[in-house]
Amino acid sequence: MTRKFLLTISFVGTGFVGWQVQKNGYAVQTCMQDAIEEIFGVRADVTGCSRTDSGVHATGYRMCFSVDTDMECIRVPLALNAALPDGIAVIGCREVDEDFHPRYSARAKEYVYLIYDGAARDPFLKDRAYHWKGRLDVEKMRRAAAAFEGRQDFRSFMSEGSKITDTVRTLYWADVSRQGRRIALRVCGDGFLYNMVRIIAGTLVRIGAGALDPDAVAGIIAARDRAAAGPTAPAHGLYLHRVFYDEIGKEDGPWLI
Amino acid sequence: MTRKFLLTISFVGTGFVGWQVQKNGYAVQTCMQDAIEEIFGVRADVTGCSRTDSGVHATGYRMCFSVDTDMECIRVPLALNAALPDGIAVIGCREVDEDFHPRYSARAKEYVYLIYDGAARDPFLKDRAYHWKGRLDVEKMRRAAAAFEGRQDFRSFMSEGSKITDTVRTLYWADVSRQGRRIALRVCGDGFLYNMVRIIAGTLVRIGAGALDPDAVAGIIAARDRAAAGPTAPAHGLYLHRVFYDEIGKEDGPWLI
Repeated sequence: MTRKFLLTISFVGTGFVGWQVQKNGYAVQTCMQDAIEEIFGVRADVTGCSRTDSGVHATGYRMCFSVDTDMECIRVPLALNAALPDGIAVIGCREVDEDFHPRYSARAKEYVYLIYDGAARDPFLKDRAYHWKGRLDVEKMRRAAAAFEGRQDFRSFMSEGSKITDTVRTLYWADVSRQGRRIALRVCGDGFLYNMVRIIAGTLVRIGAGALDPDAVAGIIAARDRAAAGPTAPAHGLYLHRVFYDEIGKEDGPWLI
Repeated sequence: MTRKFLLTISFVGTGFVGWQVQKNGYAVQTCMQDAIEEIFGVRADVTGCSRTDSGVHATGYRMCFSVDTDMECIRVPLALNAALPDGIAVIGCREVDEDFHPRYSARAKEYVYLIYDGAARDPFLKDRAYHWKGRLDVEKMRRAAAAFEGRQDFRSFMSEGSKITDTVRTLYWADVSRQGRRIALRVCGDGFLYNMVRIIAGTLVRIGAGALDPDAVAGIIAARDRAAAGPTAPAHGLYLHRVFYDEIGKEDGPWLI
């Protein structure tokens, strides 16, 4: 009997071209197809919850595939992990209906953007956090982040070249916290424009560094102009952390800074 | 004028044979000598605060070297970091007297042993934490850890083959905390026997897994016999976190789980 599984996967984005199959490198999607073929004996289609850019990480990516198998759900993660490279792990599995779609059935997604503001580099955060060499004022960043919450037109926070025309999205929360020299921006929304989290992060870093006023965010949003916002922060600080299909809750997920 | 510098360095131990120069691989010590030679033009002796095994990490290792230079102390870390591989970073520098010794002048060292007890592997913790596949009872581990504190004979927690005869050491604290699926053992003492922290960690994991009673620690110490203790936990969970030359304080250092 053909069954459809929804997997939660975690991957270190370094060295991958992103989730989606590309001509110029190794994709997470391909690794998942290879592992599924090795374990279940068929080349199944795998559908992800979103594209991710090269170097972007995930601690709670979601994807679906359908196979004819009797394997218990609880055994699927360990079976697939045995066939996956070290940089990818299946951390959860549940069975879903045929019409479930990991992207279109999602009610919200949460991203974490990780920044490290020590003067010297931290070798443990290489390729895993954006290293800002000056000290950032997290209080200012937190105050500014709150202005992103709510249903708003985020056109100023979309990279050029996107074909999207409806740029209104709802952010359920946007907040900033510090643990030592690590700063985490967490944003949860019903959808995200291309590079939206990275542009929000780049704008908040400018605010934290004192180059932009914390009260400037409302005006940047109102401008509906990419040039009004800060730079796009690098991909390697970004983590797709959680996808919500049922209740949207702010409590901590599996990953903590 | 010849000046002596005390550096604080952080390194990801993966891929190194440890601090000390060995015939069979790349040592952190060699990288430091190469960087000093590149920046200061001399092949200086570098003296470390301790040996570390292959795969062991450091977030606050200390080492000394002497060179004839006018460079300001504050500039030394950035200068050396430009010449070091990504896996090593100088995170602090101060000038010390000629008779200062990074090992013999130390009053105490603090190690962190990091365990991850999720069912599936965490790709972000590969080579950076000991993956225990069952759930560990941290309350039991914390209760047991307290029994290691104080001035005691730790012969049961020393690997065979060490030439040390005085096996009495003082542990200032030994405690266990959990953040999500990450468990950190922190131990601070005036000295450590060969593999002592890893054997303490291996013993506490057995206690957390229910294979050994939390009250068994006093008896294991009293036995003065390596066979009485638990297994030696793997090197890649161990971090040399801090070395104390002045006051010994428990507040958080630069690294947090």
